[in-house]
Amino acid sequence: MDIGVWLVGARGSVATTVVTGAAALRAGLAAPVGCVTAGPDFAEAGLPPIDRLVFGGHDISSTPLPKKAEELTRGGVIPAPLAELVRHDLEAADAEIRPGIESTRSDENRTQAAIAHSLISDITDFRERRGLTRVIVVHVASTEPPVAPHPAHDDLGALTAALGEPGEVLPPSSLYAYAALSAGCPYIDFTPSTGAWLPALDELARDRGVPYAGRDAKTGETLLKTALAPMFATRALAVRSWSGTNLLGGGDGATLADPAAGQSKKISKDRALPAILGHPVEGQTHIDHVAHLGDWKTAWDHITFEGFLGVRMSMQFTWQGCDSALAAPLVLDLARLMALAHERGQAGAVSELGFFFKDPVASDEHRLQAQYDRLREWARS
Amino acid sequence: MDIGVWLVGARGSVATTVVTGAAALRAGLAAPVGCVTAGPDFAEAGLPPIDRLVFGGHDISSTPLPKKAEELTRGGVIPAPLAELVRHDLEAADAEIRPGIESTRSDENRTQAAIAHSLISDITDFRERRGLTRVIVVHVASTEPPVAPHPAHDDLGALTAALGEPGEVLPPSSLYAYAALSAGCPYIDFTPSTGAWLPALDELARDRGVPYAGRDAKTGETLLKTALAPMFATRALAVRSWSGTNLLGGGDGATLADPAAGQSKKISKDRALPAILGHPVEGQTHIDHVAHLGDWKTAWDHITFEGFLGVRMSMQFTWQGCDSALAAPLVLDLARLMALAHERGQAGAVSELGFFFKDPVASDEHRLQAQYDRLREWARS
Amino acid sequence: MDIGVWLVGARGSVATTVVTGAAALRAGLAAPVGCVTAGPDFAEAGLPPIDRLVFGGHDISSTPLPKKAEELTRGGVIPAPLAELVRHDLEAADAEIRPGIESTRSDENRTQAAIAHSLISDITDFRERRGLTRVIVVHVASTEPPVAPHPAHDDLGALTAALGEPGEVLPPSSLYAYAALSAGCPYIDFTPSTGAWLPALDELARDRGVPYAGRDAKTGETLLKTALAPMFATRALAVRSWSGTNLLGGGDGATLADPAAGQSKKISKDRALPAILGHPVEGQTHIDHVAHLGDWKTAWDHITFEGFLGVRMSMQFTWQGCDSALAAPLVLDLARLMALAHERGQAGAVSELGFFFKDPVASDEHRLQAQYDRLREWARS
Amino acid sequence: MDIGVWLVGARGSVATTVVTGAAALRAGLAAPVGCVTAGPDFAEAGLPPIDRLVFGGHDISSTPLPKKAEELTRGGVIPAPLAELVRHDLEAADAEIRPGIESTRSDENRTQAAIAHSLISDITDFRERRGLTRVIVVHVASTEPPVAPHPAHDDLGALTAALGEPGEVLPPSSLYAYAALSAGCPYIDFTPSTGAWLPALDELARDRGVPYAGRDAKTGETLLKTALAPMFATRALAVRSWSGTNLLGGGDGATLADPAAGQSKKISKDRALPAILGHPVEGQTHIDHVAHLGDWKTAWDHITFEGFLGVRMSMQFTWQGCDSALAAPLVLDLARLMALAHERGQAGAVSELGFFFKDPVASDEHRLQAQYDRLREWARS
Ligand SMILES: NC(=O)c1ccc[n+]([C@@H]2O[C@H](COP(=O)([O-])OP(=O)(O)OC[C@H]3O[C@@H](n4cnc5c(N)ncnc54)[C@H](O)[C@@H]3O)[C@@H](O)[C@H]2O)c1
Ligand SMILES: NC(=O)c1ccc[n+]([C@@H]2O[C@H](COP(=O)([O-])OP(=O)(O)OC[C@H]3O[C@@H](n4cnc5c(N)ncnc54)[C@H](O)[C@@H]3O)[C@@H](O)[C@H]2O)c1
Ligand SMILES: NC(=O)c1ccc[n+]([C@@H]2O[C@H](COP(=O)([O-])OP(=O)(O)OC[C@H]3O[C@@H](n4cnc5c(N)ncnc54)[C@H](O)[C@@H]3O)[C@@H](O)[C@H]2O)c1
Ligand SMILES: NC(=O)c1ccc[n+]([C@@H]2O[C@H](COP(=O)([O-])OP(=O)(O)OC[C@H]3O[C@@H](n4cnc5c(N)ncnc54)[C@H](O)[C@@H]3O)[C@@H](O)[C@H]2O)c1
Ligand code: NA
Ligand code: NA
Repeated sequence: MDIGVWLVGARGSVATTVVTGAAALRAGLAAPVGCVTAGPDFAEAGLPPIDRLVFGGHDISSTPLPKKAEELTRGGVIPAPLAELVRHDLEAADAEIRPGIESTRSDENRTQAAIAHSLISDITDFRERRGLTRVIVVHVASTEPPVAPHPAHDDLGALTAALGEPGEVLPPSSLYAYAALSAGCPYIDFTPSTGAWLPALDELARDRGVPYAGRDAKTGETLLKTALAPMFATRALAVRSWSGTNLLGGGDGATLADPAAGQSKKISKDRALPAILGHPVEGQTHIDHVAHLGDWKTAWDHITFEGFLGVRMSMQFTWQGCDSALAAPLVLDLARLMALAHERGQAGAVSELGFFFKDPVASDEHRLQAQYDRLREWARS
Repeated sequence: MDIGVWLVGARGSVATTVVTGAAALRAGLAAPVGCVTAGPDFAEAGLPPIDRLVFGGHDISSTPLPKKAEELTRGGVIPAPLAELVRHDLEAADAEIRPGIESTRSDENRTQAAIAHSLISDITDFRERRGLTRVIVVHVASTEPPVAPHPAHDDLGALTAALGEPGEVLPPSSLYAYAALSAGCPYIDFTPSTGAWLPALDELARDRGVPYAGRDAKTGETLLKTALAPMFATRALAVRSWSGTNLLGGGDGATLADPAAGQSKKISKDRALPAILGHPVEGQTHIDHVAHLGDWKTAWDHITFEGFLGVRMSMQFTWQGCDSALAAPLVLDLARLMALAHERGQAGAVSELGFFFKDPVASDEHRLQAQYDRLREWARS
Repeated sequence: MDIGVWLVGARGSVATTVVTGAAALRAGLAAPVGCVTAGPDFAEAGLPPIDRLVFGGHDISSTPLPKKAEELTRGGVIPAPLAELVRHDLEAADAEIRPGIESTRSDENRTQAAIAHSLISDITDFRERRGLTRVIVVHVASTEPPVAPHPAHDDLGALTAALGEPGEVLPPSSLYAYAALSAGCPYIDFTPSTGAWLPALDELARDRGVPYAGRDAKTGETLLKTALAPMFATRALAVRSWSGTNLLGGGDGATLADPAAGQSKKISKDRALPAILGHPVEGQTHIDHVAHLGDWKTAWDHITFEGFLGVRMSMQFTWQGCDSALAAPLVLDLARLMALAHERGQAGAVSELGFFFKDPVASDEHRLQAQYDRLREWARS
Repeated sequence: MDIGVWLVGARGSVATTVVTGAAALRAGLAAPVGCVTAGPDFAEAGLPPIDRLVFGGHDISSTPLPKKAEELTRGGVIPAPLAELVRHDLEAADAEIRPGIESTRSDENRTQAAIAHSLISDITDFRERRGLTRVIVVHVASTEPPVAPHPAHDDLGALTAALGEPGEVLPPSSLYAYAALSAGCPYIDFTPSTGAWLPALDELARDRGVPYAGRDAKTGETLLKTALAPMFATRALAVRSWSGTNLLGGGDGATLADPAAGQSKKISKDRALPAILGHPVEGQTHIDHVAHLGDWKTAWDHITFEGFLGVRMSMQFTWQGCDSALAAPLVLDLARLMALAHERGQAGAVSELGFFFKDPVASDEHRLQAQYDRLREWARS
């Protein structure tokens, strides 16, 4: 009856907030604010209850979850006494965290196939040890740079062969996805990393009858873009520029300050606008690391548009959010929804979850309300 | 084949921009930016083309349209040479403007029924003189204060009787609506004034088989509220406060600086949020007159919301729009759509046009995208 | 050697932050961030050190300081363990708090002179009991409405007579000021309440040889106005409108939501701009209570100005501050500076402290930098 | 009696606005809004009147000034009929424009010394032909990338020798500065280009007894930084980050979109903050080209700071200005002030004009009010 949630990046801010929050909800210490699936539209969908979720995961950090939760308390992400009150749950989840893989570079002694094998064992051991109906794997590790193309990415046979050779054919996020799918586990890419985004892995998912979803959860600027751009579109106002500056601290901010990783994020952030408006729009998107902001993000967007008779107008907004608090309930939502998809036997890309993502798999629909309507219909169906 | 558009407030900023813009579109001098019904979703709906619209109206001002258009040119609402290029059309429309009524206070010599009679004649004369298939009446006059309740507002029989007596039972906007409906003309309340918003006038519309719609077009802060609030709702983020300050110059700004008239606007502005979120939200809405802004409006909204584990976050936006440029294309849209409703034999409140209004008649749906979907379906049906 | 600081409103947010902060500084648990007089410009001025300040005061609330400090900790004003660490100091100050006066309405049994007498005793007892060189009285109680004019306000003789009669000639803030000055204590009006702002009290201060200062500390919108308006002035840019919306929660927000009290605040807020620019400027100032903001304030200001050849431009800013954290260090600064003024034998209004106030006594200089330069010179002199 | 103003970049937006504006002021068609020296503080300084300024210059563009003025009229920089009304003055100035130099790469046929010689002749011919008391050269051409160091930059002798050789020792802006100073003309660097910013040119200025000033006029974000940062400094608030995004269209925007040229601008923009605050501050400055903004600039700055007890606060502002309208009156101011400096026999860097510049020559004072005070004293002295 219990469902496993295997977090890749299990000691990060998002993961720690997920584990703390699920425990708080279970203990009745918090309301499910920010949980989409807690609303009445999903009451009949047969989703697994949050208090039946059991957590484990991979990470390359060894900071224990209770310590990370203390940091987040100091940073204002977790309210003051909560981490203490659910310490037992944090320790239990921490005990289920296994060492992740920093790189996938293999050598004569250890091929990528062998690395994948050990990841698979970690997951299946968890499933068996804890007697779980299924395990949902969620990638919430640091964002990777975009991956260089490789012929083995396009074909499962070629990929299987390449993994048996020395070298590095898959980045870590994709090796985690490979392991999850191989273990028969639904996989979610919460980040813009490559993950399951390769034809060979899509083939693997369909072969194994396992669903996957992604990518890159929308929790700030992009969420707003997909709420606002349809307004301009239906009102026939001609958006002429859309510029954005994102200031963020925290671990994620430090990662994205690296231009290579930042590039992955920008690619996924830049999908929505032309898709909704039907034409390209000038303007840049900046992602700056501002350590003093801690776990908080400030996004400023400036939009110019043309109205009747060519009159120029503008709009700007500032979004000040706590990233992990915005992301964590969505991880719980996605775990519940993917459990449903798996139970229903859905295989391959789950396009109906586009509501959650900046760069939704197998879907060109970016309009937030339309995505929500589709999600609700799917859940009810 | 030609359709009349009778503008109450025909020499105001919105009306002048409507007439100038329609002429510019007809002459191929401008693209229909901001016209919702110019999009592909409405191509098959059988709407009357914009170049078959013929303009007239009532106003209490005697400033001729070409002069008003020059003012709007200096104010940056109408691009520099356009008013000159369509001067002929402005003069033609100006020749169709008749004196409006400043007040509806009647005396022994002239009852309200008599005043209404003369308004009706103005409209039917226009229809006949210009050989129009139908005439759509659009109220774009200065906003009135909310009207005091009166028993005759609730019943058509009582109203008819009261109009024959001395006294003032209806405010001007409602007497215009009474005249329009009595003349068998579809009526649109583009403003928050009382207009057709009385049970007795609803009865009149249904009796005569005439459609009406309203009220108070949404072109700025409220438009944004109805685009953004659904995002908070579907994401289960708990909006805790929503505060707004609207700075506007122009004639409308001067009118709304009067607390009584401003009250009408605030009432219609405050409908959307509790309807979308399902609960009241703290925060005030200010409307300030800032003459230096001219025809431009600046709206600043500040929203606080609670996320996962009670974390407090906020968002703010600033909208800088040219009010008349935002409103004018919607007047064209509404005239076309109401012509269709009339042609289809629809009578009474047209709830399907809620997409355009702050306080939509016969509808509690305020979510912008849902309103659009409903409008599109209706137009296609 | 020790200096007393007698806080009127000693259990409010500002006062509690003052006492907590002074204790934290003394214990080396915090740096004097926000303390103007901690900078090198004041090192030679002979100001009493912060760790020689001893606190007491009046309040009408009976919530003990340690409890209030816990509330402020939950609200994010005081960092998490600090209130615990300085609990002893909070208790010590709490023991020096005496019941304040809710109203100054007197009856046959008790004249205002008698009420004042008991306030004077509270202060002089504190001075003697604690062996203090001098006691500085700072009014940080809830803002009062503006007071109605009364002939006895203009003349000390008339005032003395009137205080001996039944009735209410002075509002509470002014009776506190009367008591402070009568006790020979320097008095600071940190709020926009009437306080010492009456000719009769100015006479009293000069008679007794006691300095007083005020009024209404500038910590947000007005601080920014006095930093920014000089920029427009020296650059010869013609400011045409300045509109402001202040959203604030907390006790102060609740008080100012009352239009009468809000009026006092607006009056003091509106002084600076015309004084700096040399002409009136259109635009309103709103103060809204938004409970969800807690101890935080958000101020949005929108400015339009005209440049070369009449081109219209604008600027807007949003200030998000923690009011008590902004105010508390200034209370410490003012206590130190007024101790100096007293030691120097200065009597009556101290115009050199205008840097701290929205409505500076005996000064028309509102330009922030000019005020700072004057303060620095005075301190050094 | 007449004073020449020789504009390098004489057909650009700033230059065209300068010439149009000076003509408008002379004709009484506009007030000197934005002209610092039109204020009472400068009334006694003996500055040459604006209507005695005669314009000429260098440019590599051949678009005539009247045509450029029409463009600026369409863009809303110059009010509608003005360019027509002063057409004669625009034509007169256009007749005094000579071809500029695109590059300073020399070959065997033509050394840089020879190029400089022809620039000098252009300026001295202008002076003589128009009978001018003196000619002030103002660099308002497109921003150049930073120049690579060269040994001849540090010594006038070495520079003179190098200019006689083939090759490129000076960038165009510096060759213009060399020519101006050699012709005995005061030189102003209104842009961040290298200009006179080389020890060898400083030596030349002092040798010839000619004053020079610069660099990079502050008209937006940096102006605000220098007005606001002193507020944080005097209030002892610890600024922890300052991030800025500048969106600009126009010719200047297109130039600065080139990373090399943008770099020059960023360097000059980044001087003020650490100088005023006394320590480095995290945060980036972005300059984005947004063509749709035309001649308008939007700057958004976000500041985080720490207050008492470490509480984190923030402020943000948006500045929406018309760059050329902000810059043009300062060009007039600087021409007048440099004429005074020249008349007074001042030679070399004029540090007293720092009020106008992002990166003031020979001065570390960046605080706006302090700069103004110094300017006023100097003008009066
Ligand atoms: N918070 C949001 O709103 C949001 C939205 C969309 C996407 N994301 C993405 O979620 C991810 C997590 O964000 P965060 O704020 O928790 O970041 P974080 O830096 O706090 O945590 C990342 C964690 O991943 C671990 N990690 C790094 N490389 C790993 C590897 N190869 N294998 C296993 N673990 C590894 C790190 O040790 C760390 O514990 C980021 O990629 C971020 O871009 C976050
Ligand atoms: N522009 C927008 O975005 C927008 C949006 C929604 C609603 N509205 C409403 O549209 C209306 C018109 O706005 P505007 O900017 O054109 O205002 P405006 O002040 O420029 O024009 C109003 C016109 O109405 C005329 N008028 C006043 N009383 C009248 C009467 N009793 N009979 C006939 N004419 C009368 C005036 O003389 C004037 O010509 C306002 O009520 C406004 O609130 C505008
Ligand atoms: N925080 C700032 O930035 C700032 C700036 C300028 C002025 N002020 C002013 O400082 C004052 C205090 O602000 P706060 O945030 O601490 O408010 P608060 O509401 O938290 O505290 C006010 C205190 O005054 C007490 N009080 C009320 N009436 C009294 C009376 N008659 N006698 C004695 N005590 C009385 C209350 O019981 C309460 O403890 C307000 O008037 C505010 O306007 C604050
Ligand atoms: N507008 C402001 O607020 C402001 C503030 C500070 C600095 N500036 C600087 O002023 C300069 C002018 O700005 P603008 O908006 O007028 O730009 P612009 O692009 O409109 O004009 C620049 C002019 O310089 C000319 N030019 C380019 N290279 C030249 C050369 N080698 N010799 C002679 N002429 C040359 C161009 O042909 C053009 O006419 C820019 O460097 C800008 O960075 C402007
Ligand atoms: Na409704
Ligand atoms: Na004063």
